[in-house]
Amino acid sequence: MVHQEEIRLHTTRAGQMHDLTDQVAGIVARSGVQTGLVHIFNVGSTAAVGTIEFEPGLQADLPRELNRLLPPGRHYDHEQTWHDGNAHSHLQATLLGPALTVPVRNGRPLLGTWQQIFHLECDIKPRERRVVVTVMGEPGPAKP
Amino acid sequence: MVHQEEIRLHTTRAGQMHDLTDQVAGIVARSGVQTGLVHIFNVGSTAAVGTIEFEPGLQADLPRELNRLLPPGRHYDHEQTWHDGNAHSHLQATLLGPALTVPVRNGRPLLGTWQQIFHLECDIKPRERRVVVTVMGEPGPAKP
Amino acid sequence: MVHQEEIRLHTTRAGQMHDLTDQVAGIVARSGVQTGLVHIFNVGSTAAVGTIEFEPGLQADLPRELNRLLPPGRHYDHEQTWHDGNAHSHLQATLLGPALTVPVRNGRPLLGTWQQIFHLECDIKPRERRVVVTVMGEPGPAKP
Repeated sequence: MVHQEEIRLHTTRAGQMHDLTDQVAGIVARSGVQTGLVHIFNVGSTAAVGTIEFEPGLQADLPRELNRLLPPGRHYDHEQTWHDGNAHSHLQATLLGPALTVPVRNGRPLLGTWQQIFHLECDIKPRERRVVVTVMGEPGPAKP
Repeated sequence: MVHQEEIRLHTTRAGQMHDLTDQVAGIVARSGVQTGLVHIFNVGSTAAVGTIEFEPGLQADLPRELNRLLPPGRHYDHEQTWHDGNAHSHLQATLLGPALTVPVRNGRPLLGTWQQIFHLECDIKPRERRVVVTVMGEPGPAKP
Repeated sequence: MVHQEEIRLHTTRAGQMHDLTDQVAGIVARSGVQTGLVHIFNVGSTAAVGTIEFEPGLQADLPRELNRLLPPGRHYDHEQTWHDGNAHSHLQATLLGPALTVPVRNGRPLLGTWQQIFHLECDIKPRERRVVVTVMGEPGPAKP
């Protein structure tokens, strides 16, 4: 069984995080898959997905620390080509990665209590984002 | 075919690494899958999984370098909320990621000779960890 | 449905990047899968895969910034064992990760216009690389 849907996001600024957990759980429920995997993918090269405890402190910490490790305003060769000021956005998104896969059990994504699925906008201007969610697995409990 | 099991780990300190390769190979063998994928997932937001050459040098290097990039003891907004001293644990775990997927061929995880599957504890106190392993694929060789 | 093939790469230097997008798309086409996932995996512990806008600027930026974050020539415990000068290669590869999964729709990998699948050589000498590509899914459109 394969089920695929998209989540649309309107982002407004670099460092903005969205909690996708409930929407992903809804897609898993609609898929009918009880046991398997759910894959979450950001279409595009300047945003990322992953897991985090989704609370205001870490929503500030993660983008600030990424900006410290891969800062805006340094010399990047990407800027020599495009002059669009977002080389660090590309590098941050590549480092975190565009994809996450989470196990499905009993028809739900299997996450920790304080572990949520996030989307992080790394680009420097508002974007319309597509997040593709693919569920694969079986309509019953795992064997054995 | 979908097969799902859990590995339980008792971790004792930040930076502790476990080699999960043999346990994952055992789960793949029990699954009956010959060709497909095996997915390894840490439940919780302060530990990570990945691949590395599992030898004592890199077992010291990886957590030390993560502590250099995302150090304990800095100002993190997460601490203003929780005062539990593990904001860097969250950030390190998010950066490495909670999930790994490895191809399965001939009923075994397909890894390099010096490439093992690791679990890294990023939290600052002992934890009981659940690692969910999901195998998907076919009971025979890949077509064609 | 499961389909598995390998891409062989001859790499010549640290920091070399290859665009695997067309080869991965060819494997997806040959698989007959219309809706599902394609998984790309570097066999070995000193190279990585991911997504990036594959243009010359970022091809210089990504390996240079990884060398800044995890530099060659520092003290690494790995060197005490092996003296092969590539501890940073291991750490960079582990941080980026050996694996990437991309959704498949309409028989093609679903990527952004400026989002390509790359392979990054992190090791310090030429290597013969195996990249295993696994496609799983259904021969028709997703339901519903």
